[in-house]
Amino acid sequence: MTQYDRRLFLKTGAAAVTAPAGFALARNAVADPLPSSEARDVTRTLAHYLVTARFEDLPEKVRHEGVRTLLNWVGVAVGGSQHDTITDAVAAIAPFSGPPQASLLGRRERFDIMNAAFVNGVASHIFDYDDTHLKTIIHPAGPVVPAILALAEYHPVSGQDFLNALVLGVETACRIGNAVYPNHYDAGWHITGTAGPFGAAAAAGKLLGLSEQQMRWALGLAASQPVGLRESFGSMTKSFNPGRAASNGLFAALLAARNFTSSDSMIEARRGWANTISTKQDYREITEGLGQRYEAALNTYKPFACGIVTHPAIDAAIQLRNQYALTPDQIASVQLRANPLVLELTGKKSPQIGLEGKFSIYHVIAIALVEGAAGPKQFSDRAVRDPQVVALRNRVSVQTDAKILPEQGDLTITLRDGRILHKFIAHAVGSVEVPMSDAQLERKVEDLCEGILPDARVRHLVETCWQVSRLDNAALIAQDAVPPLT
Amino acid sequence: MTQYDRRLFLKTGAAAVTAPAGFALARNAVADPLPSSEARDVTRTLAHYLVTARFEDLPEKVRHEGVRTLLNWVGVAVGGSQHDTITDAVAAIAPFSGPPQASLLGRRERFDIMNAAFVNGVASHIFDYDDTHLKTIIHPAGPVVPAILALAEYHPVSGQDFLNALVLGVETACRIGNAVYPNHYDAGWHITGTAGPFGAAAAAGKLLGLSEQQMRWALGLAASQPVGLRESFGSMTKSFNPGRAASNGLFAALLAARNFTSSDSMIEARRGWANTISTKQDYREITEGLGQRYEAALNTYKPFACGIVTHPAIDAAIQLRNQYALTPDQIASVQLRANPLVLELTGKKSPQIGLEGKFSIYHVIAIALVEGAAGPKQFSDRAVRDPQVVALRNRVSVQTDAKILPEQGDLTITLRDGRILHKFIAHAVGSVEVPMSDAQLERKVEDLCEGILPDARVRHLVETCWQVSRLDNAALIAQDAVPPLT
Repeated sequence: MTQYDRRLFLKTGAAAVTAPAGFALARNAVADPLPSSEARDVTRTLAHYLVTARFEDLPEKVRHEGVRTLLNWVGVAVGGSQHDTITDAVAAIAPFSGPPQASLLGRRERFDIMNAAFVNGVASHIFDYDDTHLKTIIHPAGPVVPAILALAEYHPVSGQDFLNALVLGVETACRIGNAVYPNHYDAGWHITGTAGPFGAAAAAGKLLGLSEQQMRWALGLAASQPVGLRESFGSMTKSFNPGRAASNGLFAALLAARNFTSSDSMIEARRGWANTISTKQDYREITEGLGQRYEAALNTYKPFACGIVTHPAIDAAIQLRNQYALTPDQIASVQLRANPLVLELTGKKSPQIGLEGKFSIYHVIAIALVEGAAGPKQFSDRAVRDPQVVALRNRVSVQTDAKILPEQGDLTITLRDGRILHKFIAHAVGSVEVPMSDAQLERKVEDLCEGILPDARVRHLVETCWQVSRLDNAALIAQDAVPPLT
Repeated sequence: MTQYDRRLFLKTGAAAVTAPAGFALARNAVADPLPSSEARDVTRTLAHYLVTARFEDLPEKVRHEGVRTLLNWVGVAVGGSQHDTITDAVAAIAPFSGPPQASLLGRRERFDIMNAAFVNGVASHIFDYDDTHLKTIIHPAGPVVPAILALAEYHPVSGQDFLNALVLGVETACRIGNAVYPNHYDAGWHITGTAGPFGAAAAAGKLLGLSEQQMRWALGLAASQPVGLRESFGSMTKSFNPGRAASNGLFAALLAARNFTSSDSMIEARRGWANTISTKQDYREITEGLGQRYEAALNTYKPFACGIVTHPAIDAAIQLRNQYALTPDQIASVQLRANPLVLELTGKKSPQIGLEGKFSIYHVIAIALVEGAAGPKQFSDRAVRDPQVVALRNRVSVQTDAKILPEQGDLTITLRDGRILHKFIAHAVGSVEVPMSDAQLERKVEDLCEGILPDARVRHLVETCWQVSRLDNAALIAQDAVPPLT
């Protein structure tokens, strides 16, 4: 062939309609390896499960974890709602938004459901304080919950249906993530934004009552819209990714509900999602044990608004502070023994602005000892410049030891009176082994909502989330998450 | 490390703000190869060009090809506007659309600019009859033109600015496509949907007057939203892809205009677009000869609404038909000598429905001889069942010969009176070597608009497109492309 590319001639000029019999032959005329037997019917199997799974089938533990996922998400979405990222996005979208169908959490504006899903999804990721499926580093609530919360405001659904959809959406995103992780993430994809649209489409499709055929199409349309590259980390585009994953998945479900067609095997086909987007495909992660084992039950919540590598040290510091009622002036010196990753990632000695505080193990330990917390407030400019915190962080030293695992931390505090306090953390709070308690989660959410919603409304919002499976109308969650009119 | 993944600890908990100095170190703590020297400043170089390029700088040939790109696109967008794909999409979107800011071509509904860009982009790909940048098989107008046409209806712009933005958008999509083609396409990506958002963002960003910094961010946001997998070919989702690429790119530009931040090197960074989405990266294709050589000048338009592999045979058949004023009853037999790909892809003997006709070289030749055309009407159910066409196609035979190149065709017609007519095609009409003439392009557009717009309006629309660089307000194009109110 001369200057022309063979691919050009393999293009078929197919109109956008469902292919007739025999069409597949022409389309796949280039010899391709057939997918392995395990790769057959992946999209079909998942769609069948999603359409048939009932709230009644969910084990109590899974339901409860779903509620915790909801509560944590509502907290981070309200908490992020005042950030410049949201102000900029709202200003960009406002002239083009449809009817005021759905709430922007923590704000007075209302957008159409697709734009509201986007904005709320962005807001929930701003502090990097959202939920984490630790096996894949997916933040599954970010794409899933805003899609169905917006839909619930437009199209009333019961709390049970809402919670069932939430769990199924989280399950879908995490299982699909498992199938391609870690290769897919290592390549450069922000996995929350690429697996997320499947979760949002599954959850929204469940609430819309899609047929199995429509659910396959919704998954196909979700597969066609992956979002996010790791290069964007450190810019507003990182938070953009879960928001766009939410609106992409919702859009996929809404189109499928109108019989907008797609492939029936988009996840596993030779030129489908997993083969195109990853060098690893383990389809059993998607299809095996559906309705029996739940990835959604393994969701975790960050107790501290900074990188997980610092969490053992923070946990140890807060435990010793509370146990001995320590005040900063009592403390002569603090020594952390930790994995070398800790200094590699968070070795900044003298942070000058709030964000830099997250990259300073010295600040992190000092602020935890002074304030007994490490939420967004502890990573403000105010916090890193507080004279008491600065003085204490200068008395913190770190000794690295590769024998200490990244999830461990060994903290020793020497008091001015000569006492030596010691705490070894095998797993920090917020891990699968030592999950945040319900009470800790409540306090986190209350803290995030403080100054944005009145205290009474926050109390009501938290209670509404805990009681979600008793709600006649899940839209109440959104209504409680916006500031009152007065 | 036990059950935990090292990646988990390398997550930094960065808030979504521009990273402070020193942040990059922590973020890239895993040892990565530095990008090669050619990979530096790719996004910056492109953004600088886009922001500074003026209409006055465009060579006349490039301007004229831009006008032809516009005209062809308007034709296919109007032509696709009545298809089920659009009816379904419009039904899905209507309840959520914003103000009626922009036209849906060929229809009376109006949507907000983002949803209008989507719908018009989908419509233009439905017949697979749109423009093609043959080096990459990108259909560049599909993502680019609907984004800026919608914007022009909202935010008045001159025809010169519109045409300049159109050329820059096409140039951007095709250059970025060149950098990763063919590996990226071979992997399974629908390259129109993945390179397309860059083109739409560049064009829309140009009309919005973005600064260089904002243009870099717009490209970063576009990079974060690739669309489309080849597995969807044969379903409505194939046409979805250019439409979503259009709205994604427009959204990227609108956010960047509000200073929504992204990376400054999203195209070339280690975990940026090209490295993540392709195994080939040739950045010189993006940065070299900007403003000197124009990919936009290499755009082509399909004269026939079917796969390019059949075009030499159709071209030969129509030329002989017209030259000898042939009628079907005069024809005893027809023999095509062609590359084996022709039968591999279009060997269907007895097509029963219109779409199947595209995969039948026998139908294609017969209908071209009977009707002198091969547009969408020639691939209707009516056409493949026409008794005269069926009778003639049964007298067509094909002999394959690997020495004949795919872009060639050798047609021999034996008449009942004993005469033998012969035509060898080296390059079919519609190729770079034998482009469609302006008059042929006009007839294609008129044919596509027939029955959707009144004839007088079609004439006016075609003239408006030819005169685009003289328009005070480019929105006139859209106004001419909708049915009158009467």
